[in-house]
Amino acid sequence: MVGDKPRTEAYRAAIEASRHLFQDKVVLDIGAGTGILSLFAAQAGARRVYAVEASGFHELARQNAERNGFGDVVRVVHGRIEDVTLPEQADVIVSEWMGFYLLHESMLDSVIVGRDRFLAPDGVMFPDVARLYACPSTLAAFHCDQLQCWSRPYGLDLTAVGEAARRSMQQAPQVLDTHPEELLAAPELMLELHLQYVTPEELAAVTCRRFVTVTRPGPYRGLCLWFECQFPDGSRLDTAPRAPSTHWRQTAVVLPTDYPLEVDTVIGWELTLAREAGGGRKYRIALSMLDEDDEHPVPCGCAVGKCRLIKALIDKEDAECDEG
Amino acid sequence: MVGDKPRTEAYRAAIEASRHLFQDKVVLDIGAGTGILSLFAAQAGARRVYAVEASGFHELARQNAERNGFGDVVRVVHGRIEDVTLPEQADVIVSEWMGFYLLHESMLDSVIVGRDRFLAPDGVMFPDVARLYACPSTLAAFHCDQLQCWSRPYGLDLTAVGEAARRSMQQAPQVLDTHPEELLAAPELMLELHLQYVTPEELAAVTCRRFVTVTRPGPYRGLCLWFECQFPDGSRLDTAPRAPSTHWRQTAVVLPTDYPLEVDTVIGWELTLAREAGGGRKYRIALSMLDEDDEHPVPCGCAVGKCRLIKALIDKEDAECDEG
Repeated sequence: MVGDKPRTEAYRAAIEASRHLFQDKVVLDIGAGTGILSLFAAQAGARRVYAVEASGFHELARQNAERNGFGDVVRVVHGRIEDVTLPEQADVIVSEWMGFYLLHESMLDSVIVGRDRFLAPDGVMFPDVARLYACPSTLAAFHCDQLQCWSRPYGLDLTAVGEAARRSMQQAPQVLDTHPEELLAAPELMLELHLQYVTPEELAAVTCRRFVTVTRPGPYRGLCLWFECQFPDGSRLDTAPRAPSTHWRQTAVVLPTDYPLEVDTVIGWELTLAREAGGGRKYRIALSMLDEDDEHPVPCGCAVGKCRLIKALIDKEDAECDEG
Repeated sequence: MVGDKPRTEAYRAAIEASRHLFQDKVVLDIGAGTGILSLFAAQAGARRVYAVEASGFHELARQNAERNGFGDVVRVVHGRIEDVTLPEQADVIVSEWMGFYLLHESMLDSVIVGRDRFLAPDGVMFPDVARLYACPSTLAAFHCDQLQCWSRPYGLDLTAVGEAARRSMQQAPQVLDTHPEELLAAPELMLELHLQYVTPEELAAVTCRRFVTVTRPGPYRGLCLWFECQFPDGSRLDTAPRAPSTHWRQTAVVLPTDYPLEVDTVIGWELTLAREAGGGRKYRIALSMLDEDDEHPVPCGCAVGKCRLIKALIDKEDAECDEG
């Protein structure tokens, strides 16, 4: 992960900003890789860091710890977090577990196992919150690169190639870089995980319906997904289109055809993320478009009169509660 | 291949420049993919194009031919060139068969089979010559990205990561973009294939020794390989560092450590490209450094006195032959 600077720097800054959580504490680094997070924890004053790594990288983690004078602090444990034994509980669990659109090929299940096995009752997860966002997008740059450029190069009609590419994309989400101007509405929060409490059962399948009001006109070609992770100090690792690009980039679920959208149109979708059969780390995405007349969630942030009314009432109640 | 513009454009320009070879002729496109080369051949006036494609792309090739009004000219044949039957011999064989460093994962064996089965006695191969070049390189950009940047980020000593990466690269050549300024000498021709005559036996293993005189000082970190293909009109598809980047980029064989080189130093190497056991399309590269005292090839372009003398004599004889 060292090569992905926004990612590594987010962890480094967050750990440094939370020295009080690490000072003289026991830290568990799950899926430590080359051990960079363990070194940050050691730099922040941890008394002991257990760096658990199942792959051959464990040897590198050990060398890195030794060359940085943390050979006594960082104990590299070669094995799966599901199998290893540790001599004590951890005050903090650090882990860089996130997959594409948060869940796909993530190590979250292992982090949960590690938490349930080794985190002290008042221990801290690092990061402690993860959020998945979605937003309708023109996918303009991707569309030009991968689909549209086939239309008439060399005086030839190669539209069949673009059509076939788009059909094949229905089977698999696309990892791509999104420009903020490609987004057609305000991003919607699809999922919020509190790492202290989340269970594997909650992650088996996640479905949510959303309606948004279009704020920028353009062809709606797919739903763009990204995530952010929040650390206990409130800082975040953000993989949004507006943030510096990470190796996760963003993920798009490409629609079969373009839908031209006008400002103030209300559009809805239902998105399901379901773990693939077989208990692996892969997810499948199902996206369906909703009619404006389909049932909206409560509350809903779209511009339909009923939703605005409900939201105003809820906001008023919240304000009164806060005052009370 | 449509998305790789230098590649597609080289074929398009060469076919257009050789209309006389295509006009009213029978053309065989081996490994046609989506059929772009077949369309170029049809545009150049071919009477009939057989587009042989083993994969599911054959359907796209058919659609592309129909949508461009060449449904009657281009006959898409679904199958392996080793298995298909064609009703007539071909005047021209076009194919985009080249792999990384020319031979690795190439389709050259299939092209040779197609040539031996279907090319008319006075038929033309398109391209007709392929050349592999090698040159010692600093691999500067790659080194900075993949190796050196690990040295001291975040105030940490992560040199172990760079060392491990370099060790792992000994097992596998690296595909990368080389800047012309990274080259430490004039490129050396390692291999020249004449497609009209080359046999699979010649391609089983290729070994060559070369000595070069260093023309630019710098750390020698690996041998950079690339190829060019030449068409009958003399035009070329060039994948050299100085040429526009293609999907092949260049390939580097990374040395275990850096060798600082001064201008006018003579360095030598022996490079072997050997087909992997099992008869597949993969090659293995073996590179060994030679001492200046090891036997030089004849002629040799390096600055050692004996080599310069021999080369001068050969050049003189050639000049006299030309005059005679």
